[in-house]
Amino acid sequence: MVRMSGHSDSGNSGGGSGVNRDTAQVDMPVAPPQRSGPIGVRGSTPVPPKPALTGPVPLPADGRSDASPMVRTVERHLDEILAAVPQPDAIELAVLDAQGLLCAEDVVSQRALPAFDQAALEGYAARAEDVAPASVRRPVELAVVGESVAGLDAPTAIGPGLAVKVSAGAMLPAGADVVVPGVWTDNGTARVAVQAGPPPGSYVRRTGDDVAPGDSAVHVGTPIGPAQISLLAAVGRDRVLVRPRPRVVVLSAGSELVDVTAAPAPGQVVDVNSYALAAAARDAGADAYRSGILPADPRRLSEVLESQLLRSDLMLISGTLSGSGFDVVQEALAQLGETRFRQVAMHPGPAQGFGQLGRDGVPVICVPGEPVAALVSFEVFVRPAIRLMLGKRQLFRRTVQAISGQQLLSPLGYRQYLHGTVMRHPDGGYVVEPVGDATDALLARMARANCLIVIDEDVTEVAAGGLVTVMPLLLGG
Amino acid sequence: MVRMSGHSDSGNSGGGSGVNRDTAQVDMPVAPPQRSGPIGVRGSTPVPPKPALTGPVPLPADGRSDASPMVRTVERHLDEILAAVPQPDAIELAVLDAQGLLCAEDVVSQRALPAFDQAALEGYAARAEDVAPASVRRPVELAVVGESVAGLDAPTAIGPGLAVKVSAGAMLPAGADVVVPGVWTDNGTARVAVQAGPPPGSYVRRTGDDVAPGDSAVHVGTPIGPAQISLLAAVGRDRVLVRPRPRVVVLSAGSELVDVTAAPAPGQVVDVNSYALAAAARDAGADAYRSGILPADPRRLSEVLESQLLRSDLMLISGTLSGSGFDVVQEALAQLGETRFRQVAMHPGPAQGFGQLGRDGVPVICVPGEPVAALVSFEVFVRPAIRLMLGKRQLFRRTVQAISGQQLLSPLGYRQYLHGTVMRHPDGGYVVEPVGDATDALLARMARANCLIVIDEDVTEVAAGGLVTVMPLLLGG
Repeated sequence: MVRMSGHSDSGNSGGGSGVNRDTAQVDMPVAPPQRSGPIGVRGSTPVPPKPALTGPVPLPADGRSDASPMVRTVERHLDEILAAVPQPDAIELAVLDAQGLLCAEDVVSQRALPAFDQAALEGYAARAEDVAPASVRRPVELAVVGESVAGLDAPTAIGPGLAVKVSAGAMLPAGADVVVPGVWTDNGTARVAVQAGPPPGSYVRRTGDDVAPGDSAVHVGTPIGPAQISLLAAVGRDRVLVRPRPRVVVLSAGSELVDVTAAPAPGQVVDVNSYALAAAARDAGADAYRSGILPADPRRLSEVLESQLLRSDLMLISGTLSGSGFDVVQEALAQLGETRFRQVAMHPGPAQGFGQLGRDGVPVICVPGEPVAALVSFEVFVRPAIRLMLGKRQLFRRTVQAISGQQLLSPLGYRQYLHGTVMRHPDGGYVVEPVGDATDALLARMARANCLIVIDEDVTEVAAGGLVTVMPLLLGG
Repeated sequence: MVRMSGHSDSGNSGGGSGVNRDTAQVDMPVAPPQRSGPIGVRGSTPVPPKPALTGPVPLPADGRSDASPMVRTVERHLDEILAAVPQPDAIELAVLDAQGLLCAEDVVSQRALPAFDQAALEGYAARAEDVAPASVRRPVELAVVGESVAGLDAPTAIGPGLAVKVSAGAMLPAGADVVVPGVWTDNGTARVAVQAGPPPGSYVRRTGDDVAPGDSAVHVGTPIGPAQISLLAAVGRDRVLVRPRPRVVVLSAGSELVDVTAAPAPGQVVDVNSYALAAAARDAGADAYRSGILPADPRRLSEVLESQLLRSDLMLISGTLSGSGFDVVQEALAQLGETRFRQVAMHPGPAQGFGQLGRDGVPVICVPGEPVAALVSFEVFVRPAIRLMLGKRQLFRRTVQAISGQQLLSPLGYRQYLHGTVMRHPDGGYVVEPVGDATDALLARMARANCLIVIDEDVTEVAAGGLVTVMPLLLGG
């Protein structure tokens, strides 16, 4: 019931295109990689056997993963999560706290912007018809009858032959329909010589040019950044209705876990996931609460889960499907609602779970306890869910096609995620290398990566120089 | 003393390539745009005169801006700022608070990762030589003498013909050098039939495979994201030395300003810059403190500046070179140190300032009070300074070349920044359109933009279809 990473001892592994589901191969055990001869895909050259196997992990893919009640596709598991994730109610926040969130109202301006006719730059407010004939050789002289400075109410009016000196943003005197830039004049004080006459309306900002009363200044769904905050303040809004950051509580399960501050005894490992997943949740836009290791005692465990539910829009637990004590966690979760644990056809991280807990049906996403698998699962399932709760239209990271610098193997029927380093190619496009030599669950390697390489379920081999899909892991991106 | 956006009445505006510094043009006044005939650049078609002029603002560029004591290039002003910006001392933070910052130490692991030999996946720990002959047709049978579960210290040892059932992450019994994946067996309890024998070392994680004691786990200068936090926790670090977020205090100057919560009287405008610039500073990675409008009273003004200096790594003031009352602000700044106010050859935002205040020489960056110019100036001068203080290697936003959907005009000798909308072109590459019809200081238009179009000093016209430099304004990017 095993189909291996592009390896086959039956010689009929097919053309490698499309999901290989020919029934001849179903139920036919396939020997592990070192047993196979040359890879029977696209006439590639033989691959020397590896000295030892560390990954990809050979999972019981039988070419029928979609149909199996035990193994489901990445898409199907993701669809279940996204369909069940609630949309938190919009809340009103101070504009600076709204930064990075999506506006949840159409902000209608009660004001005109600008609120009054004003000079767009420093110069002389004048009548266009007066200055129209001006030229460098035959300047037009005007009498300067006053000065209008930004911030002061200067209700001067001008008539023919008159001008008012203005600063940028200053009120325009009645009768003026143009501002002559100071640099086109002799900058006179009592009288000014104008060397050029701009057409009517030049360098004048009219009331409401930017925003008229009743205009919608910021629309529903607009991401609020510095420019939107500038506009909101300008129309008099210091608070705005937004889609809030979902509160994500992060927990770790596993009797082998000890806190980072403890010295692990033999067989114990440090709880890294509550830190790493809280960081990832925050990076995705959530308010993340690291709640640490779940207690081993069933009663205290249930208490922790219940109390954390109260402050969760989403609960994220790693390690519920492996290690000792996972049955205790599963039982505690079962008391609070239905959580379904499943094998998902992906590597790393097949052991996934999803449920809805408590009266409010708070979603709980369970990811593997192995730290690399936990962060990969976060990328695949949790980040899109958080972004959906934030109201983002773009749930998924951008992907690019990159040239693989090495041959990559992948188990048939499983979507594989490899950490890699993607670089721009000097001739354009991208080149990607896996980090380290394989798909080992190694934190030090993961920390050097800047992308995930995604190899689809129906691909068992990417030749060196072949194109592969790459998901750059830009922080905050 | 005016050279206009690719317009000239002298017919000798040159070839348009390189900065036009021929002395024949110096001191020769040039008429404003509507006076000029067809643009004398690269044989382009005539441009219809605009109905009214709003921008680019014609500034006193005389082709000698570098040499002039009054007007300096963008680069020179930026260089002065970057050279004077201090590097805040590294501080130790909890790992989750270190997220997004740069590591300021070489984190040497005192531990081995993994801390013990362990199974990389669920299966049976065995001796490679025992299982080597196994095949699907001729399985090898082993006696299962125990089980090793993750988190439990299981010092079982095995000899020839024996196996121990293991979970992923479980300690490997002594004598075992391979883990046979459960899916390659009959998953027996007392005895197990192995259908394939992986080579020695397969699916085994050896002590120190990931990180050996004495290894540098996270290096100086590494940005700390979820993967680094995972690794830091794994090596037992819950705190780490990082380059801190600079504290940026944001102030607005101008007697015309009222707070957003007030109703502006005629001639008054709302202070939007302290909000927008605080948001921009936070987006750039700073801890931003919005301190609001500077008081008009000289003594109180000085008090505010002095007290804010104490909590600033960088002070950011908008509106110090225009509006009424700017002389009061300049005088108050002069009491605290030297601040130099200059015309910088850019549009919008020529009025820029930079100084160092107080005993510690805290940098102060002064930007124009006009909100669009304030945010553009932030992008050009303040964001790189904040990123330098954060220790980032990449100070500047990425730029891309995009096809301009419209003809763009720009004043000679000035670098012009236009807000625009950049989109991917279906055939590859990018297309950009300016937002609105010109370079007006309009907040509503700015809020619709997703990029700045950058037109160099020596370019007076970009034809429709021509290439132009675009700086996408991705939040947090």
